[in-house]
Amino acid sequence: MKIDGNSTRTIWVADDGRTVDVIDQTKLPFAFEILKLNDVEEAAAAIERMVVRGAPLIGATAAFGVALAMADDSSSENLAASCDRLIGTRPTAVNLRWAISEMMSCLERLPEAERKDAAYRRAAEICDEDVEINASIGRNGLGLIQQIAARKPPGEPVNILTHCNAGWLAAVDWGTATSPIYMAHDQGTPVHVWVDETRPRNQGASLTAYELGHEGVPHTVIPDNTGGHLMQHGQVDLVITGTDRTTATGDVCNKIGTYLKALAARDNDVPFYVALPSPTIDFTLSNGVEEIPIEQRSGDEVSKMTGVSEDGTVRTVDIVSRGSPVANYAFDVTPARLVTGLITEAGICEASRDGIAELFPDRAAPAGRRK
Amino acid sequence: MKIDGNSTRTIWVADDGRTVDVIDQTKLPFAFEILKLNDVEEAAAAIERMVVRGAPLIGATAAFGVALAMADDSSSENLAASCDRLIGTRPTAVNLRWAISEMMSCLERLPEAERKDAAYRRAAEICDEDVEINASIGRNGLGLIQQIAARKPPGEPVNILTHCNAGWLAAVDWGTATSPIYMAHDQGTPVHVWVDETRPRNQGASLTAYELGHEGVPHTVIPDNTGGHLMQHGQVDLVITGTDRTTATGDVCNKIGTYLKALAARDNDVPFYVALPSPTIDFTLSNGVEEIPIEQRSGDEVSKMTGVSEDGTVRTVDIVSRGSPVANYAFDVTPARLVTGLITEAGICEASRDGIAELFPDRAAPAGRRK
Repeated sequence: MKIDGNSTRTIWVADDGRTVDVIDQTKLPFAFEILKLNDVEEAAAAIERMVVRGAPLIGATAAFGVALAMADDSSSENLAASCDRLIGTRPTAVNLRWAISEMMSCLERLPEAERKDAAYRRAAEICDEDVEINASIGRNGLGLIQQIAARKPPGEPVNILTHCNAGWLAAVDWGTATSPIYMAHDQGTPVHVWVDETRPRNQGASLTAYELGHEGVPHTVIPDNTGGHLMQHGQVDLVITGTDRTTATGDVCNKIGTYLKALAARDNDVPFYVALPSPTIDFTLSNGVEEIPIEQRSGDEVSKMTGVSEDGTVRTVDIVSRGSPVANYAFDVTPARLVTGLITEAGICEASRDGIAELFPDRAAPAGRRK
Repeated sequence: MKIDGNSTRTIWVADDGRTVDVIDQTKLPFAFEILKLNDVEEAAAAIERMVVRGAPLIGATAAFGVALAMADDSSSENLAASCDRLIGTRPTAVNLRWAISEMMSCLERLPEAERKDAAYRRAAEICDEDVEINASIGRNGLGLIQQIAARKPPGEPVNILTHCNAGWLAAVDWGTATSPIYMAHDQGTPVHVWVDETRPRNQGASLTAYELGHEGVPHTVIPDNTGGHLMQHGQVDLVITGTDRTTATGDVCNKIGTYLKALAARDNDVPFYVALPSPTIDFTLSNGVEEIPIEQRSGDEVSKMTGVSEDGTVRTVDIVSRGSPVANYAFDVTPARLVTGLITEAGICEASRDGIAELFPDRAAPAGRRK
C-alpha cells in the first residue's frame, strides 16, 4: 500500500540483496522510519521490540531472520540456533512457529552451500503468499461493500466501522479487515471508515488512521465508546474486524472491545463480519469464552499515553490518578452467535462449525471427534 | 467525602463568611487546589472554564454566584444582570437554570437590605438539599449491594462497574452512582469498583479513581473496552452509572459508551442500574434515542491527551495520526429495556413509564397526555 504516494510493503530485501528493511512501527504514526536488519539477532530484536507486529508480519520477519542467519553461516548448528532464537521472541505466536518450521523443513535437507539462496527464496515466497491470502480476503469481502453501496444513493459512502489495526501494517500488504475496504476504494466505490481509537494501545488512532490517511480513504477516528451511538443512528452500514484466533465453531478472539461492538451491531441489525486468513482458525477449540486464555499486559499501557507534545517531541504522560490500580486485558472473545460471517481467503462462510467445515473440509475435525 | 483524610465538599463558604471556595477540578487528578471565588464574575468563569462541573455542582456554584453578587450590590438591576450572566455560562444546563430561578424567586420579593443574607442562606440550602438527595440515593441503592454481598462468601467483594464520574466531585457530596458504593464501604460491606477510563475526557481514570482512592475504596481502572470481557467471566456483579437526562419512559442519556456496557450487562445477566436525582427526569420525553440531541464536542478532546510527563510537568500530547479527522459525541442513550432499575432519592423503580409514574405521581403526565 502507499506511504506518501509510494507503494511499499512492511518488509523487503534491500537493494544490496542481503539486508532486510522493515518499517519501524514503534515510531508510527509520529515518524516514518525504515529500520535495516543486518543479521538474525537484529531480526529477533525487531520482533521483540515490536518494531514489527501483527501475526503475518512477525512470521515474515522470522523467515527473513533465518535467511540473514544463512547468509552469515549456513551450518546446521547455526540454522538450529537461529530458529531457536527467533521462536523465543514471542513464544505464543502461531504464525511465527509456522514460518520457522517452513524455513527449517525447506533448508535442513539442503547442502549448506545452497541454503542461503533457498532461504531468501522461501522467505520471499512466504511474504508473497501472505499478500495473496490478504488480496483474496479483499476480493471476497469486496462484494459485501458493493452490495451495500448498490442500495444507497449514488455517491453516498458505505460506512464501515473497524476496531484495532487489522491493516497492511500488521501484514505484508493489504491487511485483513482493511483489504476489502482498500479494494472498494480502489474500484471507486465510496467508503468511509469509522476508526475505533482502540485503547489502550491506540492502534486504531495511530496505525489504522495512518494507513487510511496515506491511502486517501475517507475516515474518522472515534473513541471506542462511540460505535453503539453511531449504529443506533444508522451511521454504520457494516463492521469488519480482524481476529487473532478463531475457534472451529466461529467464536472470534480479537482485540479487547470487539465483543462490545458485536453486541451493538446485533442490537441495531448491522452486519458484523470478521476477516481472517484461515491459518488463524484453531480447529482444536470449540468454546472461545471458556477455552481461550486472555493475555493480561502491563498496566503501563493503560496508565501512560505517548504522543507528540507542543514542542514537537514525542513524550509519554501518565493519565491515571496516581496510585490507582490498573488492569489490561488484551483480547476478548465474541461468540459466534454475534458474528454475521467470516471473510477468508477461500470465501465467506457462516461463523459456525458447519460453515467453517464446508469451506475448509480438509482441516475441520471429522464428525465423530466434534465436541 | 475525603481528600487526604479530611472531609470536604466540592463548594463551601470560606471562613471570611463571604467568599466561596471550590476545588479546582481542571487540576485533578494531578493536583488538588482550592480556587477562591470573590465575585459573581469569578463564579461565572469557574463554570465556564469547568473549574466546577457536574449538573448539581454547577447549580450550587451559580446559586453562590448570586450570593456573591448580592454581597457587592443587592439592587434589582444587579440581581437580574448577575442571573443573566450566570445562565449564559452553560445555556443548556437544566440544574443551572433551576438554581438561578430558585435564587431569583427567593430574592426579588425581598427588600435590598435583606437580600445578601437571604442569598447565602438559600445557596447553602440548595447545597444541603443536593447532599440530602444524594445521600438518599445512596441509602436506596445500598440494599442492592448488600443483597449481592449476602449471596457471596463472607469477605468476598461485590464487584461494581461504573462509567464516567457520577461521583461527589460532580455534586456537592456523595455523588449519585458512587453514593451507594460509599455507603456500602462505610458500613464494612466489601466492594471493589471497576472504573471505566471513560474516553475521551477520562473522567473515570482521573476523577472517579481519584475519589475512590482518597476514600480508600478498592478499585481498578480499566479501558472502556474491557467491561464486556469482565462480565463474560463473572467478574462484575452490578453496574451503576449516572445519567444526565432520563425520559419519562426510562431511557437514559449518559456519557458516551454507557449503552455498550448496558448491552454487555444484558448479554451476561448482570444487573444494570442508573442512579439519578429525580429532577433529571424529563417528563416531556418518551423516546430517548429519537428525541435527545447528542452534543458533539471538540475533536481535540479525542486527539489530545493531558497527563504528567517524566519531568513532573503536566503536558498535553497529540495521539492521533496527523491529519486524520476525529468525531466526539459526548453522550449516548441507553434504551429503558436494557436498564434493570433507576435508583432515585425516592426509591428504586423500574425504568418504565409506569415505574417512574408510580414513584413520582405528581410529576408524571396524566394518562391522557401520554404519547
